[in-house]
Amino acid sequence: MTIHDWGEDRLIETLSTLFPHKKNIVGIGDDCAVIHVENGKSMLVTTDALVEGIHFLKDQISGKDLGYKTAAVNISDIAAMGGFPEYAFLTIAIPKDIEKKWLEDLFLGMKETMEEYHLQLLGGDTVGSKRDIFINLTVIGSAQTHQIKYRNMAKEGDLICVTGALGDSGGGLKAIQKKLKKTKEVERLIKAHFRPRPHLKEGQGLASCAGVHSMMDLSDGLNCDLNRLTKASQCGATIELSQLPISDDLKAVCEENHWDPIELALTGGEDYCLLVTISPENFEAIKQQYPLHEIGKITKMPQQIVYSQNGTPLSIKLNNFDHFK
Amino acid sequence: MTIHDWGEDRLIETLSTLFPHKKNIVGIGDDCAVIHVENGKSMLVTTDALVEGIHFLKDQISGKDLGYKTAAVNISDIAAMGGFPEYAFLTIAIPKDIEKKWLEDLFLGMKETMEEYHLQLLGGDTVGSKRDIFINLTVIGSAQTHQIKYRNMAKEGDLICVTGALGDSGGGLKAIQKKLKKTKEVERLIKAHFRPRPHLKEGQGLASCAGVHSMMDLSDGLNCDLNRLTKASQCGATIELSQLPISDDLKAVCEENHWDPIELALTGGEDYCLLVTISPENFEAIKQQYPLHEIGKITKMPQQIVYSQNGTPLSIKLNNFDHFK
Repeated sequence: MTIHDWGEDRLIETLSTLFPHKKNIVGIGDDCAVIHVENGKSMLVTTDALVEGIHFLKDQISGKDLGYKTAAVNISDIAAMGGFPEYAFLTIAIPKDIEKKWLEDLFLGMKETMEEYHLQLLGGDTVGSKRDIFINLTVIGSAQTHQIKYRNMAKEGDLICVTGALGDSGGGLKAIQKKLKKTKEVERLIKAHFRPRPHLKEGQGLASCAGVHSMMDLSDGLNCDLNRLTKASQCGATIELSQLPISDDLKAVCEENHWDPIELALTGGEDYCLLVTISPENFEAIKQQYPLHEIGKITKMPQQIVYSQNGTPLSIKLNNFDHFK
Repeated sequence: MTIHDWGEDRLIETLSTLFPHKKNIVGIGDDCAVIHVENGKSMLVTTDALVEGIHFLKDQISGKDLGYKTAAVNISDIAAMGGFPEYAFLTIAIPKDIEKKWLEDLFLGMKETMEEYHLQLLGGDTVGSKRDIFINLTVIGSAQTHQIKYRNMAKEGDLICVTGALGDSGGGLKAIQKKLKKTKEVERLIKAHFRPRPHLKEGQGLASCAGVHSMMDLSDGLNCDLNRLTKASQCGATIELSQLPISDDLKAVCEENHWDPIELALTGGEDYCLLVTISPENFEAIKQQYPLHEIGKITKMPQQIVYSQNGTPLSIKLNNFDHFK
């Protein structure tokens, strides 16, 4: 049996079983590992890899954008728990024919994000690679233990919200792949794909609100990530497709190219806004403070996700992204 | 200009300049980054990557040995600072045709080392790879701040010591490459290469001794690593070749195959014992407690390393290992 047959989620389950973790530690499976330290504080740790040929093509993304994105996706994991990013450690494996200029650009892009979000690079490992570039960033953050939000705490009746538009990044990727002419709208989608904004302020703010039950960032598309949230929380969800926030840019590009914006919103991936579930009693007050799009409700039925259009349930088939498929 | 022309040390210098670190943090350049936390304690962080085709060949090392080694080399970095390993985060990028069994073996090997050294795997990232396997492990440890040993604190007159035999791992690698017949001696060298023992107890013990000025682990061979230590400490060194600890196994295999054991001891790499410099006044007392081989002395001349044979200085030319060459 190969990894292709096995799939990513099964692999992570195997790791969780093989490496059980002690009490007071939330381990494999959430956006960050949480280690309770002292005085009501916790340390958050996340690690994310970007592999050439899988996550990026070197001739399609500049070194600067790739550096920016590498740091941004890790910061997004800290945002998803409501934490503050502090220290970063970079591993980079590079073939010997890589140009010095490209690598310097990569570092400059990374520096740009890190300065923006007050993250310090403290170390790492630089090694050779035979063929492909491999970048791994580990970020350590901190949070008040009682404010940390997890993906396994959604409650029946919670309103499901997202903190930003869905599908822009997926649309940007599709635009690159289809080599679309670079209109202003196309360029904005591509920027969403290359330079995602980690919703750090939103995550930190929402974490401090009573009634916010669960939170995670959207890295693999709403459908895939909502499946993970409902699985972790042992609940189900209904999503009203007409309420999905779709940007005017995505609408325009989809119309022009006969793409389905809903499909991109559900499966496009790499949006890096936050998926949040909030108790209905607290929702209105929280909505005054943070940009929230209400898109559905948590239900009782374990892992059943129902999509509806103007209240009518639909049967739709979606292809989730899996790194090994 | 490519990375091949530039070299690893120049690359690390560029990173250090681009990402300067704040006070109270020892950043890029030592075995671990050190972050002072509270109550006289510090957090140590290290990260090490193993890349297929560069650090290992999949048909030459079992999944179990590779897993064991991945964890061991990171623990060795914590040992080098005198710390205690605590938490680990694994990133693995795998092509889709990798067999499930091989991957399970990798995890089992890693689990073996982690249990042996009380290290907990808490998270990571599993992603696809187009062609090669990439493994990255980040390890977080702890130490008493005042006991941490650095590579930049060697003092003129210090005795230079190592905590174990040199060249076994390099000999093991050479034996694999030359496809030597597996005698008992050859097998022990190969084991030293596949399953290096991190000198954790030694590192923790030596860190607590007055008179131990500087410490690092030997990952790229004595010549290369001593160059790094003298550069960081702005000093020089003399090494007496007749005092280099060479195991009986290495002597036997070298004699049989007309290899130079001294060359392997100086440039073989991946020994993962510790390189320590100790004040002469404290040496005898410390030597009673820890297995130390005295091999030379720290001198004043910045970065000048002199090798001598029975007191007579030699002129030797060595090829250090560089990941990008």
